[in-house]
Amino acid sequence: MKIAVIGATGTVGRAVFAELAKRHEAVEIGATRGAHRVDLTDVDSIRRLFDSIGRVDAIVAAAGHVHFGPLVEMTPAQFRRGLDDKLMGQVNLVLTARDYLNDGGSFTLTSGIVGAEVILQGASAAAVNGAIEGFVRGAAIELPRGLRINAVSPTMLEEAAESFGPYFRGFEPAPGARVALAYSRSVEGAETGRVYKVH
Amino acid sequence: MKIAVIGATGTVGRAVFAELAKRHEAVEIGATRGAHRVDLTDVDSIRRLFDSIGRVDAIVAAAGHVHFGPLVEMTPAQFRRGLDDKLMGQVNLVLTARDYLNDGGSFTLTSGIVGAEVILQGASAAAVNGAIEGFVRGAAIELPRGLRINAVSPTMLEEAAESFGPYFRGFEPAPGARVALAYSRSVEGAETGRVYKVH
Repeated sequence: MKIAVIGATGTVGRAVFAELAKRHEAVEIGATRGAHRVDLTDVDSIRRLFDSIGRVDAIVAAAGHVHFGPLVEMTPAQFRRGLDDKLMGQVNLVLTARDYLNDGGSFTLTSGIVGAEVILQGASAAAVNGAIEGFVRGAAIELPRGLRINAVSPTMLEEAAESFGPYFRGFEPAPGARVALAYSRSVEGAETGRVYKVH
Repeated sequence: MKIAVIGATGTVGRAVFAELAKRHEAVEIGATRGAHRVDLTDVDSIRRLFDSIGRVDAIVAAAGHVHFGPLVEMTPAQFRRGLDDKLMGQVNLVLTARDYLNDGGSFTLTSGIVGAEVILQGASAAAVNGAIEGFVRGAAIELPRGLRINAVSPTMLEEAAESFGPYFRGFEPAPGARVALAYSRSVEGAETGRVYKVH
């Protein structure tokens, strides 16, 4: 399979890329680094990416920012950041890149543990992840040509514990290689509308 | 209790207002009708409303629009409508009106069946409802002064079957009076971070 891995230079994406590249033609795509670049908040950037790399059999997205901060200090603009970036970035990808997926191809998006489990400073992340999971369930029954869509909900990665550890005290981190298996299961399996939790 | 019912002139809100007004001082608030007006997409409008009606013991929101339409024709702008209106409207309300709630007061927001159950043309609604439910869970653990927050997830109301019936073929509608009980349970109970499903 030819697989576009978006966010391939991030903590999750690196692990996913390593797992899929073992047996597939994985295309490394980042926002500011990597073999190819895309800005998911910009539909034209998504089109240019796929015009450049061509049609693919699967698209994985492990990219997107969310504001973490105390609810009592959060402004609507801060709350919106995750909607504009992590949520609309992945939604833009599905609405735009769908035409570049071969029949039977798949999207695998990324939500996250926050929302299913809650943490202090995570109200915006909880909303964004809930939206991504709702979108995946809703979109799955409407995609044409046997296209599939799933999400992976990872817990904090061991590789990210240094920066995210203070938000996730008491949470058991998962190695990136283990999180990557869930993406492989989505891409190389046959299910649609699923959320694969790694937590 | 003094209870602000936002969206009180809509199908759900009318039923909620009727239930709560039996034994409380319920304040009728609409977008374009009702005793008081508010535009939840405008933080200043929210402040003006509460400066006018004063502090309350509970705030109920049953307001917000979402785009329904086929996924394969949906544009990012159409998808955003529900984020800007139903989601950010209710988030703006919580971030802004919190200071007008008496100690131990509550927010009761409105999500919806779409997302938990999926329907054709409902991918945006599924995202919005998932976001609202994630937000409620995330915000519940951070609200100060014993403030609570819950959501009600109603199915289609009998009173709305004429307009929404075609989207919900095979779904069992619920009478508004039954949906209103879930709001009463949230307002007059003691739980927080809950999603009360009426479906």
